[in-house]
Amino acid sequence: MAGQSIHEQSLDLTELAKKIMNRCDELALHTEEPGRVTRRFLTPPMQSVHRLITQWMRELGMAVRVDAAGNLVGRRVANVAASADSRANSNPRVLIVGSHLDTVPNAGKYDGILGVLLGLALVERLGDLPLPFSIDVIGFSEEEGVRFATPYLGSRGVAGNFDTTWLGLFDSSGVSMRDAIIGFGLNPSEIELAAYSPETVIGFLEPHIEQGPVLERAGLPVAVVSQIVGQSRLVVHFHGEAGHAGTTPMVPRRDALVPAARLIAAVQEVGRRNDGMRATVGQVVVHPNASNVIPADVYLSIDVRHGSDSIRLAAVDELVCAGASLAAQDGVDFGVTRRNHTDSVAVSPQMTSILRGAVGDAGVQSLEMVSGAGHDAVVMASRFPIAMLFLRHPGGVSHHPDERVDVEDVAVAIDVLEKFVSRLAVEETSV
Amino acid sequence: MAGQSIHEQSLDLTELAKKIMNRCDELALHTEEPGRVTRRFLTPPMQSVHRLITQWMRELGMAVRVDAAGNLVGRRVANVAASADSRANSNPRVLIVGSHLDTVPNAGKYDGILGVLLGLALVERLGDLPLPFSIDVIGFSEEEGVRFATPYLGSRGVAGNFDTTWLGLFDSSGVSMRDAIIGFGLNPSEIELAAYSPETVIGFLEPHIEQGPVLERAGLPVAVVSQIVGQSRLVVHFHGEAGHAGTTPMVPRRDALVPAARLIAAVQEVGRRNDGMRATVGQVVVHPNASNVIPADVYLSIDVRHGSDSIRLAAVDELVCAGASLAAQDGVDFGVTRRNHTDSVAVSPQMTSILRGAVGDAGVQSLEMVSGAGHDAVVMASRFPIAMLFLRHPGGVSHHPDERVDVEDVAVAIDVLEKFVSRLAVEETSV
Repeated sequence: MAGQSIHEQSLDLTELAKKIMNRCDELALHTEEPGRVTRRFLTPPMQSVHRLITQWMRELGMAVRVDAAGNLVGRRVANVAASADSRANSNPRVLIVGSHLDTVPNAGKYDGILGVLLGLALVERLGDLPLPFSIDVIGFSEEEGVRFATPYLGSRGVAGNFDTTWLGLFDSSGVSMRDAIIGFGLNPSEIELAAYSPETVIGFLEPHIEQGPVLERAGLPVAVVSQIVGQSRLVVHFHGEAGHAGTTPMVPRRDALVPAARLIAAVQEVGRRNDGMRATVGQVVVHPNASNVIPADVYLSIDVRHGSDSIRLAAVDELVCAGASLAAQDGVDFGVTRRNHTDSVAVSPQMTSILRGAVGDAGVQSLEMVSGAGHDAVVMASRFPIAMLFLRHPGGVSHHPDERVDVEDVAVAIDVLEKFVSRLAVEETSV
Repeated sequence: MAGQSIHEQSLDLTELAKKIMNRCDELALHTEEPGRVTRRFLTPPMQSVHRLITQWMRELGMAVRVDAAGNLVGRRVANVAASADSRANSNPRVLIVGSHLDTVPNAGKYDGILGVLLGLALVERLGDLPLPFSIDVIGFSEEEGVRFATPYLGSRGVAGNFDTTWLGLFDSSGVSMRDAIIGFGLNPSEIELAAYSPETVIGFLEPHIEQGPVLERAGLPVAVVSQIVGQSRLVVHFHGEAGHAGTTPMVPRRDALVPAARLIAAVQEVGRRNDGMRATVGQVVVHPNASNVIPADVYLSIDVRHGSDSIRLAAVDELVCAGASLAAQDGVDFGVTRRNHTDSVAVSPQMTSILRGAVGDAGVQSLEMVSGAGHDAVVMASRFPIAMLFLRHPGGVSHHPDERVDVEDVAVAIDVLEKFVSRLAVEETSV
């Protein structure tokens, strides 16, 4: 009988997984560009997406609101008091589950959205199970930073670190963020009210596709995120001298491209030498970029990520020194024109331990991995305990229409979330 | 007295040099783009330039015509018969002097034009000196290949290898070459008549700015061109796999940029190792070229030039092998998507020997150098003996408004041309 019960449950999970994948398909139709998935902060298709998810939340008995930062919040209210705790006498705390509803231009169907729908699937699985805490499923309004060149607008509202001077930013059509918020039917002066007070929050759990190949290579459906990497983003500039490719002898040319090329190779070497590092030159701009002219100026983007901030910063220093030295060898000037650093973000040991246990409860092998990308969880971590669950991402292509996820893995993720809540309920009750 | 005469002559030369530099300034005002010098094949400013130069040629007593390829031709008719020669009884032969009147977009004032005006200065210096050959000063209509993406249209007409299928080519405004020729008042069916018969031509002498730094570094005003380099132009393609810069581990990434960068360094190394070679990557195209995405595709232009065709082709083979090998190391595909070769061009030993003597007669140290760029002389060499005289080009910046030339060097060049004609007259008379 026990075996059969598990079998029936796993069938349900698969059906639920199929349901939310169908819903991902349906939400992808709400886009700014027909034929491509593009849904930026507070655009009309976001309004349609809110309408649909609101309906789905209400069908689950959730209370729905949209905060002034444009986040869609559905609450499953705590339906039993935590035991021997002062909080039992006041408001119950809340577990936040979710991710973002906006997309990059020409996106896939799962990045962000899947995390929100997994939150709904969790609530559906829980049914009327008594829990001593509320669950808020949040669909963050903005994570990708596309419309106003400023990312994490939604989670910054919830974490209480939304900078209201951003209301004066303009999008590419000349619409201010303030007017965009008003146009969505919201009140920009109420953004502070979007913030959760830390003492009311158990933590934030973000399910998200991996956006990389690690789980696929490991042959596993989900991973527990152990840390979110720190990131350094640089733009370096090599300035040499243009000249006719046929008439200027090799020595003493001042070809800006050659030392830049040697630095590109050095970025790979430094990245490979440091275990766990990702070091990438993704963007190259050459002037004048004509086949018969020696390049006068070359700009390279350098992206370095690592779990250890000190290892990352040492690698950046090494690469900057290498750039200067390689440039000097060819009589070329070198400078760093832009330099941004974001420190690594720790996950909550307690929540992550519970998540690890839940993965085990779901009967799948646990893999821990560092997140190489930023997520809403980065911002949420500034105020709340966080944990992240990654889902296998076949093909590993994200920010692209080819983004894929398998229904079996979605079923596992739903199961893990349910087991996470069960374990958390025990902990909250026994506090 | 002799010393004083030389002094007087050099004063005259300087005045004449100033005059043609002023004329370069004046011609630069005739442009398609106010404020920039842009004068393409058969455009209205070319019409104005023809009017001015026609007037200057007529003031020198020259007979002027425009051939059907748009070349402006002024003739100083032979005014004494060559002595003991059958040609003395027929038409005298002709020395062609000149260069091109078209420019690249946003050009300087001297590339091409100076060679035409030096031809006029030569005729002015010669006065009514009896000569056993005619001198044709040609302002070629097209060398840069801008309007119809096909270079050397003018000299191809004169050399008799104009491909009449080009008449069907269109410019960026949709005007066919045929209509452009008709619109200039010419008859495209007469292009074959632009060709000179080789037996009527002594040779072609092209004075041109060096477009490089060699004379400036040597501290010399002029150089005799010993050869025009052969050139290989390739486009190579590295095809890897895009991926998220933060979530894709270093191994096994398939980053197309890293092997491309190593090949850029190899191009410099091969260029430096082969004496006299110029090897350049001038153009880099990266897809998707975003700072947080591993490059999937990289295209590089490779330009290799050398006086020896076999050394050049061996270097190209070496670089193609290196590209394939570097790509394979990173699991990246490699291919050569375009490959053009132009063999090196020999100058006429006889004409060049006379030119070398003329440089000595002018009292300046002779420097011989390989031309790293193509010129009308390349096309003319297919039918006629050629020689080239380079003028120092301070700053070495060509195809650019900063293009410069010094009046003293122009004076030396006029003197060298005059001495060249004197020596040639002796040779032609004594044939």
